[in-house]
Amino acid sequence: MRRVIMLLLDGGGDRPSGGGPTPLYAAHKPNLDRLAAAGSCGILDPIAPGIRPGSDTAHLSIFGYDPYRYYTGRGAFEALGAGIELRPGDVAFRTNLATVDENNVVVDRRAGRHVSPEEASEVERLVNEVIAPTVMGKLGVEVVYKSTVEHRGVLVMRGPVSHRVSNTDPHKVGEPILEARPLDGSREGNITAEALNMVTRLFSERARELGINAARREKGLPPINAILARGGGYMPSIEPITRRYGVRAAAIAGVALIRGVARAVGMDVYTAPGLNGTASDEYAHALRLAMDLLAGYDLIFLHVKGTDSAGHDGNYDLKRTVVERLDRALSEYMDRLEGMYVMVTSDHATPVSVREHTGDPVPILVYGPDVVRDEVDRFSELTCWRGALMRIRGMDIMPIASSYLGLSEKFGE
Amino acid sequence: MRRVIMLLLDGGGDRPSGGGPTPLYAAHKPNLDRLAAAGSCGILDPIAPGIRPGSDTAHLSIFGYDPYRYYTGRGAFEALGAGIELRPGDVAFRTNLATVDENNVVVDRRAGRHVSPEEASEVERLVNEVIAPTVMGKLGVEVVYKSTVEHRGVLVMRGPVSHRVSNTDPHKVGEPILEARPLDGSREGNITAEALNMVTRLFSERARELGINAARREKGLPPINAILARGGGYMPSIEPITRRYGVRAAAIAGVALIRGVARAVGMDVYTAPGLNGTASDEYAHALRLAMDLLAGYDLIFLHVKGTDSAGHDGNYDLKRTVVERLDRALSEYMDRLEGMYVMVTSDHATPVSVREHTGDPVPILVYGPDVVRDEVDRFSELTCWRGALMRIRGMDIMPIASSYLGLSEKFGE
Repeated sequence: MRRVIMLLLDGGGDRPSGGGPTPLYAAHKPNLDRLAAAGSCGILDPIAPGIRPGSDTAHLSIFGYDPYRYYTGRGAFEALGAGIELRPGDVAFRTNLATVDENNVVVDRRAGRHVSPEEASEVERLVNEVIAPTVMGKLGVEVVYKSTVEHRGVLVMRGPVSHRVSNTDPHKVGEPILEARPLDGSREGNITAEALNMVTRLFSERARELGINAARREKGLPPINAILARGGGYMPSIEPITRRYGVRAAAIAGVALIRGVARAVGMDVYTAPGLNGTASDEYAHALRLAMDLLAGYDLIFLHVKGTDSAGHDGNYDLKRTVVERLDRALSEYMDRLEGMYVMVTSDHATPVSVREHTGDPVPILVYGPDVVRDEVDRFSELTCWRGALMRIRGMDIMPIASSYLGLSEKFGE
Repeated sequence: MRRVIMLLLDGGGDRPSGGGPTPLYAAHKPNLDRLAAAGSCGILDPIAPGIRPGSDTAHLSIFGYDPYRYYTGRGAFEALGAGIELRPGDVAFRTNLATVDENNVVVDRRAGRHVSPEEASEVERLVNEVIAPTVMGKLGVEVVYKSTVEHRGVLVMRGPVSHRVSNTDPHKVGEPILEARPLDGSREGNITAEALNMVTRLFSERARELGINAARREKGLPPINAILARGGGYMPSIEPITRRYGVRAAAIAGVALIRGVARAVGMDVYTAPGLNGTASDEYAHALRLAMDLLAGYDLIFLHVKGTDSAGHDGNYDLKRTVVERLDRALSEYMDRLEGMYVMVTSDHATPVSVREHTGDPVPILVYGPDVVRDEVDRFSELTCWRGALMRIRGMDIMPIASSYLGLSEKFGE
């Protein structure tokens, strides 16, 4: 029973700042290093050399889907991550709940950055139960709003729609809400722009009557009286990973966007206690779940967010600590990993010296039965380029996994 | 203030002939080797493994433009290099001034390889002031001729034109001038062929009256009485490098074709005393200019032609000497390069044993802040493949530079 466990350290790659060791190099991680020593190492360009990936495009690539073909704006992946079932052709926008003045000029793009779950629910009811039926009646477009975190949410449109419409979010305080305009001459673009403008207008009109705004006024919080949309994307038609690579795959992730990408490519998505998508996550439960899921899947993908968060914060020690925490949690399973394939890599570098995603390659290791053993015995940016895998790309990972699993179709005879 | 200096040794790559050292390996070049030792090395396929590049296609690739998409025949790049301002859609041909007999049969494709600058000017006047107005009046096509070196020149057509027409140059002595024919059924192809035939015919008719031909007869030189066109190409619409990669870039080059390619991708083009595009060039002024230009640009590209010329001449010692001359000129600036990125590579190999461009990979080094340091301490074909960059392609260079500069757009979120 061949299986693959893929551990992805989000933003785990780094640079040797001032010539010093990277967090991955410095981390005490005997288990990851044992896997590196026993297997093949290399460096990975998540998309292509030098390209600065987002987490969404990099995950698409690592899951075996060319992001230049399948990435259709963040909206769709954000909506999937929020648990909305998207069908091919659905259009999704990222939204902010915001505060505008009487002239529709934006006063606060995040409504004071304070939106409680109860307030979010009331907004959902307003959009989905009051506004959506009107839009459906007038334009034949189905509208679904879902709140995600704080002021953030997604607005999905289904029907004769297109993602080729401009944002209503002016991205600036002091500017009025923008009119959505179709970006091409299509009928769908026109309808979508009209639907989006209708939602925007009705929302600001009806928000006055919301009970939450009376309460917010008393607390001195700015009212929630606008919804700003941006980043329209449509849900592409994606051949599921099981069909494309012959691999039954599950993802364990706490981050909505990653869950969304995994779901988009047809993976079953799980979460585990302790896996909240933060730098203080604990990986014991997630790894146990991964082991349990091996009974029903060929490949388990486990997403570790903390390295990226620490990178964005410029926190070297925290980044190292996240790796060490994962490594400790791995201890318990090292025996069980024998006879399995383990792949460890990153979706991009988030160097603590840069605090943003960069285009650097990241280390990768492949451990498992009959894998060529090279001399690399330490998993890091400073060592893995000496390994037998040489330099590969994100899109190469799934074919390699599928081949080791003996599940890929032969191309030709 | 992050900056990139890119030094390109044209045709600098070579082969270990008979197992011996290559000119780059043998050259005494302590400065380039110091950069190699402190940075990452690798090998580069300017276009793709084994592909034999021209200098134009390789430079397009290294500037980040897929030559399979943007290379549209040498004519356009030759014209740009000659200083003609081309607009997207303009068509350009490479031309020879030649000698034909009374039946339009080519007697000498280069008019005795002797065309003085004064003669060239008179030919320019004939085409641009006498012939061009006629063509414009009859076909609505604007014609511009510019002489480049000796018998060579470029003929540009602007208007309802296409580059899909056949050559008038028979490429052989003893053959008559060919009629240009449209290579597709387009109206533009027909018009262009007609315009080209009209220029060809009028030129041979009017050349008799040229004062220079009387003088040439006296000197025993064959008359200039034909213009032969070949290699029609059109000026593609190219998104400028500043927009595509976020990089303000300048090129310092003495070679017309390279200047043309650099200009085509939107680089500002400079030259410097001593940089004439020959194997005896001196690089002191060019390097000083590069340093000065850093104030206003993110990336400075410096083109070194001598290595290619020496390769074409099969002159091993000269090729080595050109590298040593560049290295000596670098000495003065090594301190100032600290904190900057330096990339050194070639657009292709021109092995002295082959005397022509080959498809071999070429060495590349990337030096700069937080670049992974590998063990390679000598910049050459025989050593760089051991480096941390592994094997990359011409098209990877600009994304890597842009990522190090922190100027690239993130792809996704």
